[in-house]
Amino acid sequence: MFKFQITARNNRARAGIFTTPHGDLLTPVFAPVGTQAAVKTLTPAQVKELGATLVLSNTYHLYLRPGDDVVSELGGLHRFMRWPYPMLTDSGGFQVFSLAQTRQIDEEGVTFKSHIDGSTHRFTPQRSIRIQENLGADIIMAFDECSDPNDHAYSKLAMERTHRWAEICIKAKRRGDQALFGIVQGGVQADLRAASATFIASLDTPGIAIGGLSVGETKEEMHAMLDVVTPLLPENKPRYLMGVGTPEDLINGVLRGIDIFDCVLPTRLARHHSAFSPEGRLNMMNASFAHDERPIDETCDCYTCKTFTRAYVRHLIVAKELLAGTLISIHNLRALIRLMEQVRNYIAQGIFEEKAPGLLEQWKNNASREPGDG
Amino acid sequence: MFKFQITARNNRARAGIFTTPHGDLLTPVFAPVGTQAAVKTLTPAQVKELGATLVLSNTYHLYLRPGDDVVSELGGLHRFMRWPYPMLTDSGGFQVFSLAQTRQIDEEGVTFKSHIDGSTHRFTPQRSIRIQENLGADIIMAFDECSDPNDHAYSKLAMERTHRWAEICIKAKRRGDQALFGIVQGGVQADLRAASATFIASLDTPGIAIGGLSVGETKEEMHAMLDVVTPLLPENKPRYLMGVGTPEDLINGVLRGIDIFDCVLPTRLARHHSAFSPEGRLNMMNASFAHDERPIDETCDCYTCKTFTRAYVRHLIVAKELLAGTLISIHNLRALIRLMEQVRNYIAQGIFEEKAPGLLEQWKNNASREPGDG
Repeated sequence: MFKFQITARNNRARAGIFTTPHGDLLTPVFAPVGTQAAVKTLTPAQVKELGATLVLSNTYHLYLRPGDDVVSELGGLHRFMRWPYPMLTDSGGFQVFSLAQTRQIDEEGVTFKSHIDGSTHRFTPQRSIRIQENLGADIIMAFDECSDPNDHAYSKLAMERTHRWAEICIKAKRRGDQALFGIVQGGVQADLRAASATFIASLDTPGIAIGGLSVGETKEEMHAMLDVVTPLLPENKPRYLMGVGTPEDLINGVLRGIDIFDCVLPTRLARHHSAFSPEGRLNMMNASFAHDERPIDETCDCYTCKTFTRAYVRHLIVAKELLAGTLISIHNLRALIRLMEQVRNYIAQGIFEEKAPGLLEQWKNNASREPGDG
Repeated sequence: MFKFQITARNNRARAGIFTTPHGDLLTPVFAPVGTQAAVKTLTPAQVKELGATLVLSNTYHLYLRPGDDVVSELGGLHRFMRWPYPMLTDSGGFQVFSLAQTRQIDEEGVTFKSHIDGSTHRFTPQRSIRIQENLGADIIMAFDECSDPNDHAYSKLAMERTHRWAEICIKAKRRGDQALFGIVQGGVQADLRAASATFIASLDTPGIAIGGLSVGETKEEMHAMLDVVTPLLPENKPRYLMGVGTPEDLINGVLRGIDIFDCVLPTRLARHHSAFSPEGRLNMMNASFAHDERPIDETCDCYTCKTFTRAYVRHLIVAKELLAGTLISIHNLRALIRLMEQVRNYIAQGIFEEKAPGLLEQWKNNASREPGDG
């Protein structure tokens, strides 16, 4: 049911085809995030039109609202949100550690309070798998514990628990039409990352995720961790770098052997009027755009750039029209998806490594994550 | 450049073709409102897809933001908002009287303060025409004064001034590619409405608008005024009932000889989670929809109803996803546009009068305008 075929390699970078029950993914791939079973402000028709092939949704959010049982009763996530293409859910682990009001971790799981109403809930590895089975995404994640990446002692404990939980998740899994990925943890500690990569690689899973990065560490730390991890992973399994990222992060990730990315950044930036562009990230509310008849990005082929001027997008922002967020979301998502298309073509042609410095230069001023972005 | 051809009549109801520089309008027609050069939460591609042919935009809002000079410099409203089909602008009169913070009326015009920043501005009939010429809609309106409809003395003064201003607007108009409509006023006073209809009908304009209705009067009063006005209007000019309305209002308007309608109601209701349906207006946040796999309206052919369940739409509302407003807007607008398609077909077949009671029965529970709707 799941097959990963590498079609081209450029040193550590790979292009491939990951076969899922809802269609083939050409990798490297960027997945828009539909946290609550919707990519914010976009219809699935718009998400499809901008070239997305994989959409991520969040287990923690859907468990709380509308409830995974409701989603299951309504035919599963693909049917519920009318995205009949590949989908991925995370395990809820990251949200329990970042969003929930309070949490108590023990060997069997995590008890936490909902960020919505303060009600008390408990996730265990088994429960996370059961919820993800109810949701029914093609790619699901093992339940993991996220640590302070700079705390070696805690990162080690959390990593070891994540390993034990990964084995429990594999045993708990019942559906044959879902690919469960183990998650490599270990903070920004090279020894832990190496140990985690080795352990997760030893498990019988169709793919491997790398978690706990893009959580505040420096770019250099993230790259160093990827340089430790990916050489220890099997070549024949897709590698998913969770929650990453910016155009620059994607290029740097592919260079280090990553196949799958997701991030809320394109849609979150859009709601804050910020657009990716080869000129650097643009604040579309800037007064300088008031008379600017160019599209956001003259090189872009998205509906927004093919249709509207910067002046119009700026007007929508100033006039507080929600359509602004929709139009910039379309552009920002298309920018990353088009970048991945370009990267796949370069890998297929065997020229990605020589093109990468130019791509990084082109997108460099889109890389910063400003306070409030995350 | 403008031609109105009546293709079928059923007593006072008419079906026709109104030719404009940006395409033919099949009448009766309902126009979605794009107050600030955008139909709220929808792309022009979505507005087109749901069958809209005419879009209204508001002169007062666009004059204030981004400025009619900016819109003109950017190629006019059609090009600015990328709606290359027929467009209509109002004169700004209604907004000056309903939205502006303060206003002082004199014989030459109105001085008012912006509802956005309190800055002082002045509209005169000439200025309203000049602004509308900068905006460049196909159909434009004479500058009018709106009165308290129940105050006979004030309504008479306002009506007489509206008549003088209409003549000034006709003289001020310079562009040959815009159809200027005079506006019938007169509150809910039958004698004034008759005098106003007679006067406005005597002017050389390609169409006639009826203003000052749907502003708080009863349905019976609105119908009575239409019964006074439309028999006094020339048959060969399109009649536009401004700011109306509900499905029931549209059916009742067509029965009384109206050809063009516009209203913010479909998109405003959508943002308040309220959907038109033959079952009556539905509050889509209602818990009863949590597991409901039916579309909003099983008889509807819109993208929303062809694609999504009530359960999903409700989930989006509960989860505060803006996509809910988009999806319900598509449905509500399509409901009125489809109703007008049905009405045109009935008129063409000569059966509208016999079908009207059934249509009114079908849509009756969508008619009420709740506090906060307008």
